[in-house]
Amino acid sequence: MGNGGIHAVDDAVELARLRQTETPDSMVVRFGADQPLPLDSGHSLGPWQIAYQTYGRLNADKSNAILVCHALTGDQHVHNIHPVTGKSGWWDLVIGPGLPIDTDRYFVICANVLGGCMGTTGPASVNPATGKPYGLDLPVVTIGDMVRSQAALIDHLGIDTLFLVMGGSMGGMQVLQWAAAYPERVFAAAPIAAGARHSSQNIAFHEVGRQAIMADPDWHGGRYLDAGTSPRKGLAVARMAAHITYMSEASLHSKFGRRLQGRDRLTFGFDADFQIESYLRHQGLSFVDRFDANSYLYVTRAMDYFDIAAEHGGKLAEAFRGTRTRFCIVSFTSDWLFPTAESRAVVHALNAAGASVSFAEIVTDRGHDAFLLDEPELFGILRGFIDSAARARGLA
Amino acid sequence: MGNGGIHAVDDAVELARLRQTETPDSMVVRFGADQPLPLDSGHSLGPWQIAYQTYGRLNADKSNAILVCHALTGDQHVHNIHPVTGKSGWWDLVIGPGLPIDTDRYFVICANVLGGCMGTTGPASVNPATGKPYGLDLPVVTIGDMVRSQAALIDHLGIDTLFLVMGGSMGGMQVLQWAAAYPERVFAAAPIAAGARHSSQNIAFHEVGRQAIMADPDWHGGRYLDAGTSPRKGLAVARMAAHITYMSEASLHSKFGRRLQGRDRLTFGFDADFQIESYLRHQGLSFVDRFDANSYLYVTRAMDYFDIAAEHGGKLAEAFRGTRTRFCIVSFTSDWLFPTAESRAVVHALNAAGASVSFAEIVTDRGHDAFLLDEPELFGILRGFIDSAARARGLA
Repeated sequence: MGNGGIHAVDDAVELARLRQTETPDSMVVRFGADQPLPLDSGHSLGPWQIAYQTYGRLNADKSNAILVCHALTGDQHVHNIHPVTGKSGWWDLVIGPGLPIDTDRYFVICANVLGGCMGTTGPASVNPATGKPYGLDLPVVTIGDMVRSQAALIDHLGIDTLFLVMGGSMGGMQVLQWAAAYPERVFAAAPIAAGARHSSQNIAFHEVGRQAIMADPDWHGGRYLDAGTSPRKGLAVARMAAHITYMSEASLHSKFGRRLQGRDRLTFGFDADFQIESYLRHQGLSFVDRFDANSYLYVTRAMDYFDIAAEHGGKLAEAFRGTRTRFCIVSFTSDWLFPTAESRAVVHALNAAGASVSFAEIVTDRGHDAFLLDEPELFGILRGFIDSAARARGLA
Repeated sequence: MGNGGIHAVDDAVELARLRQTETPDSMVVRFGADQPLPLDSGHSLGPWQIAYQTYGRLNADKSNAILVCHALTGDQHVHNIHPVTGKSGWWDLVIGPGLPIDTDRYFVICANVLGGCMGTTGPASVNPATGKPYGLDLPVVTIGDMVRSQAALIDHLGIDTLFLVMGGSMGGMQVLQWAAAYPERVFAAAPIAAGARHSSQNIAFHEVGRQAIMADPDWHGGRYLDAGTSPRKGLAVARMAAHITYMSEASLHSKFGRRLQGRDRLTFGFDADFQIESYLRHQGLSFVDRFDANSYLYVTRAMDYFDIAAEHGGKLAEAFRGTRTRFCIVSFTSDWLFPTAESRAVVHALNAAGASVSFAEIVTDRGHDAFLLDEPELFGILRGFIDSAARARGLA
């Protein structure tokens, strides 16, 4: 993103600018105003940029690239220490030497999504037209736009066909979009704990989160960076509500039950009496330190808008007609955010489209977030799928 | 509640006072400072009052009284036009001449819960010690306290034994508490869509709602009546989050799906594009016109604290040992707030206690709120249970 045209720089804007141009540890590809990104809304975005991480080495014929797509509040730091939180990569259990995504064999790419807040253009980026952060002046983006921005990155890297595109939750939506929009560029695809559309209930939870953010007076109509504030309380409430949907009733029961927090009796007050309350408050508070509230609006909206079938006359199978991509679909029994029925609908559509597809429903009580946890059955499935695809691709 | 000792009356306080002493269409029983209500917290509350409605006529030997207990955001207007919303009674489908609770045969009582905001003492009531609304100075109340206050009302009405205590959701919690605390005063009990404790997930959703309210700067630490404000946005967000839990994924899908609101295409903005968004916003906004934010804190807390087994050494059956009350337990297949497993745990405990219990799980996709809707199977079950109990009671 060019630095020209920035006037009236104050601290908040400077912070936003730094965040965009000097994201620690991430590479950034910048596209100028002459290389705008066309958006599903009809707008185009330019200049724009995409921040990404890579692991492993690209082979000579560029046939071993794996694109990992991150979830709603994830980012590109899939296999390195996170520069803000100091935590290890969010898929360190899956990616690494000897792991299902073996970095000794594959070149792994993970990019921050469009609309995000870790270096790719988002609402905290500076709007070249005003020299201030976009706020809500950034056009609303879609999963399709995210994938289009990733395709531009893949072009930049000189990669024609991705060996594998994979991800969980919103990452899985991007995988399906990749397979639908660029079938010839996706050799294999593994959407996990995902679906081809966002359900009414899922939209409802997202709307609660957005209303919580927009109800916070520190949101300032989206111009909080200009105002030098941050809608921390609203964003924390949004995160708390969402976090419940990432776990199952059973996992909450076994992890917390009705156990009390650091005391042996009820306090008859409104402090966090129960461990689950303390846990949720912590989830909310730690989230606001690493995530931008407007990005939360944009990325949740992208998920809500996602409906592959709607773009193909209501027929999901049409989105994949004639595909030669090999699919591996995985769901979890206790996932009520993307229940197995959503994955099964994708499997049926792929079958109807004559695609090569394997499907596994993993029995676990860990809910939606199981895809991020130590689930040996998931790892075994991924390993088998990837190894088989590698042989078919001549990589083994 | 006495009017003496009120100083520095401003409009907000006057409004709160009027709300407490002149609740339209409700009778009120006032207990003086010399008749305090002992609370589970160890505090006692006095003066205090309870507002209630009745329907039908008490018979000569006072053996035909039915106490209906209302849910979290319900109130005593179970079978009359609501004085604030103008809507019909919330259980008009169940209560009335010829209906399962036949007002030609039974005397029906419904009281606003302790901590509520429709005439019974709650956080908006005037604290006699200060002349201002209690706010958070009202001691935290429990389901046990609510039931104790209802027992005082029943005493006042000269009724020894209730023919039937019934209610859904938090109302069902009160039914179970009645049966555990006053077994000799409950001839029959029908808890519907309820449980003997609040689950971790349920506490989590309540905590999100409370945090949304307390994050609203118009909440003013609970002193918004003094400040002349109201945390409307926070309360609306709390209601939106809770409302999702009252419906099932299937009912949201069939009622709203991904249908758009009053237009034929996405707007690429943050207005309510989807019908489900518009519906939830309406639920939030209409709720704040009839409910007090601090009451929401108190009543959710009472539900969170509810755990009958915990008061009996962790053995739920002990709570009902030796009971002669006849029980009818009802759950709904798609209720994920109080899933059938919670009702089944109560049934098992009652069986272990040697109680008379019938149990029905009704197949419906309408979720938790099915108990408020037109569910003929529910009505048939209630009619059969009540008729049978009436014969046993010599009322038939």
